[in-house]
Amino acid sequence: METKEISQAVVGRLPRYLRYLGELRDEGVERISSQELSERMQVTASQIRQDFNNFGGFGQQGYGYNVEYLYEEISKILGLDRKHDFVIIGAGNLGRALGNYLNFERRGFIFKGIFDIDPQLVGEKVRGVEVMPIEELENFLEQNPIDIAVLTIPKTSAVDTVDILVKKGIRAIWNFAHVDLNVPEGILVENVHLSDSLMKLSYNLSRRMKEQTKG
Amino acid sequence: METKEISQAVVGRLPRYLRYLGELRDEGVERISSQELSERMQVTASQIRQDFNNFGGFGQQGYGYNVEYLYEEISKILGLDRKHDFVIIGAGNLGRALGNYLNFERRGFIFKGIFDIDPQLVGEKVRGVEVMPIEELENFLEQNPIDIAVLTIPKTSAVDTVDILVKKGIRAIWNFAHVDLNVPEGILVENVHLSDSLMKLSYNLSRRMKEQTKG
Repeated sequence: METKEISQAVVGRLPRYLRYLGELRDEGVERISSQELSERMQVTASQIRQDFNNFGGFGQQGYGYNVEYLYEEISKILGLDRKHDFVIIGAGNLGRALGNYLNFERRGFIFKGIFDIDPQLVGEKVRGVEVMPIEELENFLEQNPIDIAVLTIPKTSAVDTVDILVKKGIRAIWNFAHVDLNVPEGILVENVHLSDSLMKLSYNLSRRMKEQTKG
Repeated sequence: METKEISQAVVGRLPRYLRYLGELRDEGVERISSQELSERMQVTASQIRQDFNNFGGFGQQGYGYNVEYLYEEISKILGLDRKHDFVIIGAGNLGRALGNYLNFERRGFIFKGIFDIDPQLVGEKVRGVEVMPIEELENFLEQNPIDIAVLTIPKTSAVDTVDILVKKGIRAIWNFAHVDLNVPEGILVENVHLSDSLMKLSYNLSRRMKEQTKG
């Protein structure tokens, strides 16, 4: 069942399932029907069944899914049973926020290094890890097998940095720079464009204001 | 044309159009065909035309769209021609990062206040704005008309804070807390679940590793 290509829309919904299942587990719930999960998550039960069928359905029997089993299975599908080492490029507030985020470590994402172009930030510590000068990035990547690079730098520097990352064989980039990165096929990029998200909010807000003015 | 309900998928793509149009404008490009825009953005020209048709098509004539006009029109649609005042709840690294982000101000999002539960953070300054104790939030919202509250606090405190925000008539919440907020209809919520995004990356990374092991 693992060989089938799963759509990114389905993949994008898995972390939310995992979050709800984690809450259910913490509440001591052992089994849950797709109907109950549907009400809790405010998605249709048929959507849930369809999503889960991509992975063989997770053996729903009689009165529902086994919460613990489902939680573990989805964790594995998401690759959370493996360790992923990451570095952060950019030790500004956002970079430091991500370095300090303990939940990542619980999920197997291990914070290995942080780099900045600003000499004043070099040597500062983020959760015990010293900020290194960006000039050392290349050498660091040669010495340490890193899976994921997190980019929290302005878009102008992002382009140059990506060249180094690609050259040194990084596999995945979590990109917070406000630019679409141009990477060779085979390198994964997941974008978090914060401004885009804020603009979506602004669109809906403005639209509502206009409706109220009309009404 | 403004009365039609536009799908959130289309709305979600508008900021990216705006970004590319801004770059084109900065490069001095005056007109662009949907074909050229398509190549640059790596989406199909028919997708672009379909998206734009939701807003009347933006008068493409002969050899393409007027870049400046299109940029201004999409800005207006996104509500970026209005000012939106916002407060940040949570003065940790992420809250401070968002408070310091100057691009938001250029887009009309005005940073008006920041609050934290930690007395040690109170009085610190984020871009000239003093961190206030969370107890003052209610009073502050009574005195100041705020459109958007940005939540950069843990999920346990998020729920209580949302009650205050709702009571004081906030219209929109930009939520970074790792929980789906329960708000009355009419209040807009835009979620940024950073862990979910990282897990999507992890899924694709693990999948690729498995494929390589097989090959």
